[in-house]
Amino acid sequence: MRTNRLREIWRSGGAVVNGWLAIASAFSAETMAHQGWDSLTLDLQHGVIDYADAVNMLAAISTTATVPLVRVPWLDPGMLMKVLDAGAYGVICPLVNTRADAERLVAATSYPPRGGRSYGPIRALLYAGADYGSQADAEIVRFAMIETREALDNLDDILATPGLDAVYIGPADLSLALGCTPRFDQDEAPVVAAIDHILSRARAHGVVAGIHNGSADYALRMVAKGFQFVTVGSDARFMAAGARAAVDRMKAQGGAAAGTGY
Amino acid sequence: MRTNRLREIWRSGGAVVNGWLAIASAFSAETMAHQGWDSLTLDLQHGVIDYADAVNMLAAISTTATVPLVRVPWLDPGMLMKVLDAGAYGVICPLVNTRADAERLVAATSYPPRGGRSYGPIRALLYAGADYGSQADAEIVRFAMIETREALDNLDDILATPGLDAVYIGPADLSLALGCTPRFDQDEAPVVAAIDHILSRARAHGVVAGIHNGSADYALRMVAKGFQFVTVGSDARFMAAGARAAVDRMKAQGGAAAGTGY
Amino acid sequence: MRTNRLREIWRSGGAVVNGWLAIASAFSAETMAHQGWDSLTLDLQHGVIDYADAVNMLAAISTTATVPLVRVPWLDPGMLMKVLDAGAYGVICPLVNTRADAERLVAATSYPPRGGRSYGPIRALLYAGADYGSQADAEIVRFAMIETREALDNLDDILATPGLDAVYIGPADLSLALGCTPRFDQDEAPVVAAIDHILSRARAHGVVAGIHNGSADYALRMVAKGFQFVTVGSDARFMAAGARAAVDRMKAQGGAAAGTGY
Amino acid sequence: MRTNRLREIWRSGGAVVNGWLAIASAFSAETMAHQGWDSLTLDLQHGVIDYADAVNMLAAISTTATVPLVRVPWLDPGMLMKVLDAGAYGVICPLVNTRADAERLVAATSYPPRGGRSYGPIRALLYAGADYGSQADAEIVRFAMIETREALDNLDDILATPGLDAVYIGPADLSLALGCTPRFDQDEAPVVAAIDHILSRARAHGVVAGIHNGSADYALRMVAKGFQFVTVGSDARFMAAGARAAVDRMKAQGGAAAGTGY
Amino acid sequence: MRTNRLREIWRSGGAVVNGWLAIASAFSAETMAHQGWDSLTLDLQHGVIDYADAVNMLAAISTTATVPLVRVPWLDPGMLMKVLDAGAYGVICPLVNTRADAERLVAATSYPPRGGRSYGPIRALLYAGADYGSQADAEIVRFAMIETREALDNLDDILATPGLDAVYIGPADLSLALGCTPRFDQDEAPVVAAIDHILSRARAHGVVAGIHNGSADYALRMVAKGFQFVTVGSDARFMAAGARAAVDRMKAQGGAAAGTGY
Amino acid sequence: MRTNRLREIWRSGGAVVNGWLAIASAFSAETMAHQGWDSLTLDLQHGVIDYADAVNMLAAISTTATVPLVRVPWLDPGMLMKVLDAGAYGVICPLVNTRADAERLVAATSYPPRGGRSYGPIRALLYAGADYGSQADAEIVRFAMIETREALDNLDDILATPGLDAVYIGPADLSLALGCTPRFDQDEAPVVAAIDHILSRARAHGVVAGIHNGSADYALRMVAKGFQFVTVGSDARFMAAGARAAVDRMKAQGGAAAGTGY
Repeated sequence: MRTNRLREIWRSGGAVVNGWLAIASAFSAETMAHQGWDSLTLDLQHGVIDYADAVNMLAAISTTATVPLVRVPWLDPGMLMKVLDAGAYGVICPLVNTRADAERLVAATSYPPRGGRSYGPIRALLYAGADYGSQADAEIVRFAMIETREALDNLDDILATPGLDAVYIGPADLSLALGCTPRFDQDEAPVVAAIDHILSRARAHGVVAGIHNGSADYALRMVAKGFQFVTVGSDARFMAAGARAAVDRMKAQGGAAAGTGY
Repeated sequence: MRTNRLREIWRSGGAVVNGWLAIASAFSAETMAHQGWDSLTLDLQHGVIDYADAVNMLAAISTTATVPLVRVPWLDPGMLMKVLDAGAYGVICPLVNTRADAERLVAATSYPPRGGRSYGPIRALLYAGADYGSQADAEIVRFAMIETREALDNLDDILATPGLDAVYIGPADLSLALGCTPRFDQDEAPVVAAIDHILSRARAHGVVAGIHNGSADYALRMVAKGFQFVTVGSDARFMAAGARAAVDRMKAQGGAAAGTGY
Repeated sequence: MRTNRLREIWRSGGAVVNGWLAIASAFSAETMAHQGWDSLTLDLQHGVIDYADAVNMLAAISTTATVPLVRVPWLDPGMLMKVLDAGAYGVICPLVNTRADAERLVAATSYPPRGGRSYGPIRALLYAGADYGSQADAEIVRFAMIETREALDNLDDILATPGLDAVYIGPADLSLALGCTPRFDQDEAPVVAAIDHILSRARAHGVVAGIHNGSADYALRMVAKGFQFVTVGSDARFMAAGARAAVDRMKAQGGAAAGTGY
Repeated sequence: MRTNRLREIWRSGGAVVNGWLAIASAFSAETMAHQGWDSLTLDLQHGVIDYADAVNMLAAISTTATVPLVRVPWLDPGMLMKVLDAGAYGVICPLVNTRADAERLVAATSYPPRGGRSYGPIRALLYAGADYGSQADAEIVRFAMIETREALDNLDDILATPGLDAVYIGPADLSLALGCTPRFDQDEAPVVAAIDHILSRARAHGVVAGIHNGSADYALRMVAKGFQFVTVGSDARFMAAGARAAVDRMKAQGGAAAGTGY
Repeated sequence: MRTNRLREIWRSGGAVVNGWLAIASAFSAETMAHQGWDSLTLDLQHGVIDYADAVNMLAAISTTATVPLVRVPWLDPGMLMKVLDAGAYGVICPLVNTRADAERLVAATSYPPRGGRSYGPIRALLYAGADYGSQADAEIVRFAMIETREALDNLDDILATPGLDAVYIGPADLSLALGCTPRFDQDEAPVVAAIDHILSRARAHGVVAGIHNGSADYALRMVAKGFQFVTVGSDARFMAAGARAAVDRMKAQGGAAAGTGY
Repeated sequence: MRTNRLREIWRSGGAVVNGWLAIASAFSAETMAHQGWDSLTLDLQHGVIDYADAVNMLAAISTTATVPLVRVPWLDPGMLMKVLDAGAYGVICPLVNTRADAERLVAATSYPPRGGRSYGPIRALLYAGADYGSQADAEIVRFAMIETREALDNLDDILATPGLDAVYIGPADLSLALGCTPRFDQDEAPVVAAIDHILSRARAHGVVAGIHNGSADYALRMVAKGFQFVTVGSDARFMAAGARAAVDRMKAQGGAAAGTGY
């Protein structure tokens, strides 16, 4: 089976630099896959992507060595299994709030006897190789998102779940849970404290900690803290930011029309 | 009929700041349309977009005041008519090399008696209003691309074509035509000379001159020269550049894994 | 945040005239949005529409002032959140049979602390504006469908659910639940009695009542009764009815071939 | 090979009642195919349909006995061949203005030695049967659209083209060509005269005459005149008309909100 | 309502020869439907097919007399109802492990009072006929997959579920459940014993037994045992096997390049 | 630039074993790309594939070392350029009947000064590498199809066209052109003679000869004759043949129902 480079990086003590895809386009995904990311995550939760798009995007990413991951919309075993069958090498599951949630995540992504994943890795066999069936449980990675008060309350129970490889922090949701403003790159004290707490407990349990970031600067600070999986920006955000900057510069110069555009 | 803001800007002596779309996604197009561009051009020639995508993207852009344009793959009257019927407020036609080419472009985009466009503006009626049929000839804009030696040789003939509103320079193709390196933001002398020559002749004929640029800086220089339609970057380029910068910063710091990504 | 016109109409005591979309086409949706409906509902339950279609259709409707709503296939929090993120300004949820169902509906469509909706309104930010996060809970509307015996038994409990804005009657399912023929525009006594009962209890609880109708005549009668949200027909039904009438007239005249067509 | 029912109707002296499809949806097409039309035409010219949609729509129509036709965007041999390969049983070609145009139409739709159609009827074999290759030339039908002054000038030459089965009048384009208002169901004298002239000459040449109509009433008058192929309305028009009528009735009654909808 | 041929075959004591679809293509499905299968199953679980594809594929199969079935990804009532509304004449549900699972399957696929299926058979009405609502419960077929230890433990309870028509064995999952290698056409003793046991108990309960096979030889053995529904191969497997055989023959001969291909 | 393996095989005197894709599916294409073909050709002429599908399919093939080729629908420079921009490493052009046709093929696929290809290799840059612009003319391959009497008459002129790399024989069309039955693996004397003649003249001109075959046996005979590019079967044909064989075996045994399937 093709090795999961995320596990290699983690074993070496390094941090994975993860990109994020919200646009439903194989070409866009392939372009992103050529920018040097260790992994790319297709966001089927808040991104504008569904399963059919995901299949084509996973193939497009597979033209490079970038590791393909998927964030599913919900803890739905049917969808978890479908994206793994399609060749995702890891899944990020939102709103894992209890030990039972975490166990269902592991069960849906592991073959018997460990779990209840149904066998039929139709595209994964092409991407990973013929021994996928016997190796997948050990190679693919499972992230549980910690982003609610309930999850914080159950943190150690969740982290102790056998087979759970990593936790992932969505700072916007975590902020809302703590009565703060939903945004990335948080510096509000309750959120920072929660982030540090999650990281600390994760490390204590031998679980990788990951976090979503809006900027490379913040992500580097997170790596310095000990996060081993950091997302920076997204396809749509890079695009919008670049476009906005160009328009602003054009309009500011006055050389162009004083058009408001919209 | 909804007014074509490009014509307003041009009448006021201003320059249109145009964005460029190569990704086949209505969501991506709608996101770009919210960044303040005066117009957005769907590139059906070199972009990864076809007609079916274009219809959804034109609708997405129509949620804003940004003017929707289309570059067609080729001087194909069938496609020119289809994108206008779908609500494009202007077309950019590649490889207009002769007066006959320019006349065919105008004919395909104008109703009788001026031209031979067939009547059936199925989505344009929704976007533009019920009087589209009688006003469209005067509102939509037609760009001929000048990008070959043959076009340079026939420049005045092309520019004198009745009904041709604008010319558009593709610097990469123009560079190749002149034995230079295909790229944007050219400073090789033969290309600069050709750009200036096209601009000068266009202004002499009362035809708007437009050009494709890789950066706002170069575009501003072009506006200063007298170009009244300047494209800056593209969805895919902004996305890739932002992603590359983020990855480079992450990898350079050494805080992240020394992963090569691909 | 862009105001939700449904709430304005309701506050003024008026009734919303809602159109229905079963065909998976952004062009079709945009055409419908130009016919004067107060709102249009994308039917992801019984219509032939899925999430990917819905995103393009929501953008197409957003070219007009018609309010975009979505009926989801099922009380699935993942899908409820996805269609809201895509810009739906209200959701209709089938088969809300218990107070717990209603509470899950509200929770999935409200941000913490009120509910557990995850933050990431990717297209909603474009449509609604930058303050969507703080205003959405109060602007979007939540309809629970009352269409089973169990729901009738639990009616007051459901109606008393905090955050539930409206109930919606599916006459076909309600008819089946009551042992009657599944159809719209019912006049069978048990169904009429149930409709009146639901309306009466909804008004007592200060909850808006809505109903699906096959004809404007019946819908007007429902408005006269006090319903403040009435659906009339659907894209596919208008199309089929118009086509059938045209064919019947052609065939009846004998002027055309006695073809049976199929 | 499955018989082309259009030829049967014509041989019996009857008129074909044709429906029109502008919406790119197989479900919509299948719904229309159940309304009793003798044939249905996918409009790839002014409709919002492209080739990929057309393949699925042709299959959907093939669930009924309704004969599937395609109007191509342009006299493009590549597209003419592709839609025939996909199982269209006839093609309507816009803007056939000269004898040479008509000959190219026949050539692109006929196998050698009669024409130059390339062999590869990939879906047509499924729909028509294994002997398609030897029978198709005689079964499929070819319509040339007569809609310009040039076409009127060359009418007899066009009509005399061997292998041309029918002509089709697009009243909107014909109106524009004659300096009249582009619309269906014309009663302006120059257009009526041209329609009668085309019909008369077609009958003299033994060529079937067809015309696009906005209403069954007008279509019946055309059948009475001798037209043997009459289109009535379209999917999008039936849908919009039904929706508009329902909204108007709701709003007129005052029972509903005085909402303007958009 | 159009008769469900599966029930006819079963009543006559025969076995249904079922084909399997994993490729998301209406053309591919239509091609398969012309090869003589009694039924074809769209695999939305392990196949690369989603709901939107399924609608077009069901229409394509409906051009023939082959009975369309769908395997859903999961015991999700929303999806079960959607595929039935789209015209599936039977559903195969994975991972039915308990009596409660089986009851939920029957409930989601049966109208009240028998179950809780919501009424809105939008495409099924076209395919099946106008009396679908009253006949569907009796015509469509429901398969529960028996593929886990838990299901084996609950076998008799599951088989005794009123309204359950058939069970279906996925040999790969069953093998994993029993500690064997996941594959079709099993001859490992524990799997063979389980298969025989399921068949025997199904027959005792008057429930049809079905099984997935990799080859016609194995399928024939299963028919001889008493299975009345046998799947043989799949679109993707036939394609890959034929391609592999052709390449191997070309490469083996040495006449072609010693290319490794990949 | 990534090397074009076809040129390597040809330089070594070997023959390329080419697979054929008619099904519009990236998953199907990726599956085929794993069967060992030297190259795979997307058939946009007679296959059910359009440009948008092709982009995703080219990405899917790019996950392997199989070389991606495209047969375009027609000698349309716009489409030739689009598929090269999308990363095709060679094009097969139908119906090249004259020297002028061949020259237009070469011109549309070569950058200035050799030809008139427009610069914008949007996906090709990802697949091939950053130096695509300067190397593409020499790496990509251009096949002209010889399949009409006119082409046979002009054979030497066509073969002498500078920049034409190969000719490709479509036996079905060639058969029709010669008054024979359209099929692959021809043994009718006039077709065999024409095949031999084309091969002989191609070799005399130093042009590679290729041919479409229905079976490996026939393809091996062609390789033995001197053809250096042989297509064997297609995705749809392998699938249908495998399915038909399985069904026939099931039905022949009588163990299964005597169902006719359709």
